[in-house]
Amino acid sequence: MRQMTTLLSTRTERQGLLEITDQIKVWTDGQAVKVWLLTILCRHTSASPLIQENAAAAVRGDLEEYFARIAPEDPSRYEHDDEGPDDMPAHIRTALTQVRLSLPVIEGGLALGTWQGIYLVEHRRRPHSRTLVLH
Amino acid sequence: MRQMTTLLSTRTERQGLLEITDQIKVWTDGQAVKVWLLTILCRHTSASPLIQENAAAAVRGDLEEYFARIAPEDPSRYEHDDEGPDDMPAHIRTALTQVRLSLPVIEGGLALGTWQGIYLVEHRRRPHSRTLVLH
Amino acid sequence: MRQMTTLLSTRTERQGLLEITDQIKVWTDGQAVKVWLLTILCRHTSASPLIQENAAAAVRGDLEEYFARIAPEDPSRYEHDDEGPDDMPAHIRTALTQVRLSLPVIEGGLALGTWQGIYLVEHRRRPHSRTLVLH
Repeated sequence: MRQMTTLLSTRTERQGLLEITDQIKVWTDGQAVKVWLLTILCRHTSASPLIQENAAAAVRGDLEEYFARIAPEDPSRYEHDDEGPDDMPAHIRTALTQVRLSLPVIEGGLALGTWQGIYLVEHRRRPHSRTLVLH
Repeated sequence: MRQMTTLLSTRTERQGLLEITDQIKVWTDGQAVKVWLLTILCRHTSASPLIQENAAAAVRGDLEEYFARIAPEDPSRYEHDDEGPDDMPAHIRTALTQVRLSLPVIEGGLALGTWQGIYLVEHRRRPHSRTLVLH
Repeated sequence: MRQMTTLLSTRTERQGLLEITDQIKVWTDGQAVKVWLLTILCRHTSASPLIQENAAAAVRGDLEEYFARIAPEDPSRYEHDDEGPDDMPAHIRTALTQVRLSLPVIEGGLALGTWQGIYLVEHRRRPHSRTLVLH
């Protein structure tokens, strides 16, 4: 079986959901195999790949607020603060949303539903350079 | 390598956990290959495939209540309400439980533990037709 | 395609995150294939494989406290209590963190980031024997 891997580096400008469907597609469209399984692994524990609805932008805003509510920046709650008050909440949000994602490719296209897109969720406040393994 | 895919359509009658292990097995049992990786992708962002305990029914009820508690229907919390008050909570619950699931098939059988079943969690209140990609 | 599977049994001594990266590596290092996809399935619904940061130990403690906060042991909340007050919270924490995990192996090594390790999160209080399927 052919195994194809690449590294995708992307820069996150702010906390929140950043759509990366098109960047993923550039790579998957270039593959000769037509039916396969795509795995995306984020090599950091403070950002997560996530499949979410790509139609209403308010969904993204509400999700970002929800993560802020469910794992708030509150130094009194956490012992770990080596990298600032947004670091431990980022690890928690990552544990809840995972760092990897698998997705079938069928007839050369991502098997997403009509209203689904692939996002990278940046859980830290400042811009970060994030490396994804595509396989 | 052989790649096998199909679409499984299922109708959810109500919000909550619906066991789909048997529907999945009908398809996996028909495959000639004996050791492979099953991927299930739900093509919607308001329902999730989930592996959970299949013995005590109370576990499912408690989980349903937990999701209602952790991501409540409360319009004052969310900006997105185009599709009713249960839509944004459904997107949040989906972000927490994911839309896809991978599971080894060994000796032709799903490699589940004794007390595990595969469920589709319907996060919306009304019945929906849900499409799963099996790969 | 070669399909390789094994069962890994591990004993958890207490509730919390137990690093299993090295136990996984013993098996993956022994495989002749150099690029493949590792899937880990935990055959229980009260323990979860999880990729998390492996540097600061405080991160693990904070995560354990977070799970205790987000899905507390509180019998008044749950109907299911056949196996003690820590059982239903364990099922909930498992639904939030999943029982399976997929991870590329590239050049014979796990494609983890520098600060990532693989953990088994034991959600029950007492020691348990946990079986993982590696594929």
